[in-house]
Amino acid sequence: MSVFWNDRTKNLSPYIPGEQPRDRQFIKLNTNENPYPPSPGVIEAIAKAAGDDLRLYPDPACTSLREAVAARYGLRPEQVFAGNGSDEVLGFAFGAFFAGGEDAPTILFPDITYSFYPVYAKLWDIPFRTVPLDGDFLIAAADYMCPSGGVVLPNPNAPTGTVLSPGEVFSMAECLEKQGKVLILDEAYIAFAGNECSAVSHIDKHPNLLVVHTLSKSASLAGLRVGYALGSEPLIEGLCRIRDSFNSYTLDSLALAGAVAAVSDAAYYDGINRRVVATRDRVTETLRGLGFTVLPSAANFVFAKAPGISGAELFSALRERGILVRHFNSERISDFLRVSIGTDDEMDVFLAQCREIHGKE
Amino acid sequence: MSVFWNDRTKNLSPYIPGEQPRDRQFIKLNTNENPYPPSPGVIEAIAKAAGDDLRLYPDPACTSLREAVAARYGLRPEQVFAGNGSDEVLGFAFGAFFAGGEDAPTILFPDITYSFYPVYAKLWDIPFRTVPLDGDFLIAAADYMCPSGGVVLPNPNAPTGTVLSPGEVFSMAECLEKQGKVLILDEAYIAFAGNECSAVSHIDKHPNLLVVHTLSKSASLAGLRVGYALGSEPLIEGLCRIRDSFNSYTLDSLALAGAVAAVSDAAYYDGINRRVVATRDRVTETLRGLGFTVLPSAANFVFAKAPGISGAELFSALRERGILVRHFNSERISDFLRVSIGTDDEMDVFLAQCREIHGKE
Repeated sequence: MSVFWNDRTKNLSPYIPGEQPRDRQFIKLNTNENPYPPSPGVIEAIAKAAGDDLRLYPDPACTSLREAVAARYGLRPEQVFAGNGSDEVLGFAFGAFFAGGEDAPTILFPDITYSFYPVYAKLWDIPFRTVPLDGDFLIAAADYMCPSGGVVLPNPNAPTGTVLSPGEVFSMAECLEKQGKVLILDEAYIAFAGNECSAVSHIDKHPNLLVVHTLSKSASLAGLRVGYALGSEPLIEGLCRIRDSFNSYTLDSLALAGAVAAVSDAAYYDGINRRVVATRDRVTETLRGLGFTVLPSAANFVFAKAPGISGAELFSALRERGILVRHFNSERISDFLRVSIGTDDEMDVFLAQCREIHGKE
Repeated sequence: MSVFWNDRTKNLSPYIPGEQPRDRQFIKLNTNENPYPPSPGVIEAIAKAAGDDLRLYPDPACTSLREAVAARYGLRPEQVFAGNGSDEVLGFAFGAFFAGGEDAPTILFPDITYSFYPVYAKLWDIPFRTVPLDGDFLIAAADYMCPSGGVVLPNPNAPTGTVLSPGEVFSMAECLEKQGKVLILDEAYIAFAGNECSAVSHIDKHPNLLVVHTLSKSASLAGLRVGYALGSEPLIEGLCRIRDSFNSYTLDSLALAGAVAAVSDAAYYDGINRRVVATRDRVTETLRGLGFTVLPSAANFVFAKAPGISGAELFSALRERGILVRHFNSERISDFLRVSIGTDDEMDVFLAQCREIHGKE
């Protein structure tokens, strides 16, 4: 606390990112990174861009990237906003569409979900209410069909990994549209759920639906910090207004070039992400065979509870054995661990250690 | 305007960045980029980082860059904050230190200065008052020695290019410290003013002094989007709290690697920036010989008024001749142009065109 901080700074509860170990070598299954490398075209594009004029400002409109994303989804570039990771895009979206102040209507999101949502809400002074997942840890769409200031949801949800059907999403969007409110759908993990689960093809039908994607997971580019949003032109323009009141150039020339190459190489990424999905399904089955409770995952991680050992204990036991996973010390889920899907070899080590820890009980 | 925008989005007046032409080739003297390339070590470091694991998240604490900056200025890494360009750092600083709401005390900045300051103030709902430059377009330090909510100043100022003495800066910092308020000193152009003009060496004496630097100008890396702030630990911690409530990873792995290399190669940059300064002084003298009014510049641009032609007319005439400069259509300065310093060859073309346009009057 400092005399020089304003009230906002004093009252915030900042997000705590997952551990990024610098020294010790771990099997790193804690931040949902893709175990396979980015498309070779990405590295080539970055090398070329580095040889160009880094002394010049990048294109603040991110035109080339917005064109590549639009082409991929059959949209127009005016329906695409590009940002410095989907976290930045979400931060702008909260600031653009959800009203602040104590008299503002309450926005809704699940009680168990991406832990950055309440942080954004506090930053922008937006009142919020968390809606409990049902007894099976699923999002109950009906619970969001009520007057509110807007809704933000990950689909698939994190850290649970479960997915809503497109029909449920569109019902929510319609209900909110009648209220003049926005549905922010955070599809960070959609590539692991199957294309039919994405709401992107319905952007034209729902002017209040903002779909947010990231290259961090499905495009193996967490290190490049690129995300984007898809939505109606007024929503995209709203994001631009906030961005241009904060930082006009949030994507550097190298990230822009690498992202264009990644978005344009769907075939490569379909291949590696199919492998991730196959490994996920094998890990789920094996863990269930060991007596674990594993939620049905449509993401690149599993959310699992071991029999006869607390989440905190299993987290520590795995860490001692050189395996880093994520543990959330929150009500209802403190006995679960979120385990990112690594390579088959990495997951075999993880499963072997689970068996060993289990056998010691 | 859209029904889905909140009041903030409706009421903002976003910043308009200088033109970044995509197609036509210009002599580009409009956005204060360095005419010389970045240090060769920067390109090598980026190539190496691209070959590393872009699939992994970068270090959210930007440790290596903060260590490099600290080493360069004889500070501790805890006194350094790194961000996605100095615009982002300034955006966080306004959000962290200046109070918002209609009852908050008014912050101060010059009437003719970086046009992003009023934009940040509106984003965070901070009341502000602009303080007129004096008759010679200089910042009058005494005008800021009064009760306020804080002060933000570029030194050298932009677009005028004039510089305050360190003594004047420290008097302001002291006056604000007694009020528990922050002085944000935006030293984007300090490398062209001489090291003795920087306030960095006095960070330890003024806990309320935040000095902001960018790699865009003096390090020839506008395309990489890296800036940093230097200040007391409580100020740096305040910036981290806002950052981690918005986007935990604002610097990608490539920008981090390139920035470390740039910050560590002071010798190269001293060399190219001495050339820029020599060219600036020659251009100033030549323009004055043509009857221009040229403010004394300590930056990598000159702010100049031509005899017998309006700023808008000269801007257009230069643009037709393939030379892009910056014109601000604001009171008091509408007859001035801001001209970034290019290579000697580029400035010779600029001067020849000025002579030709001048001769046609």
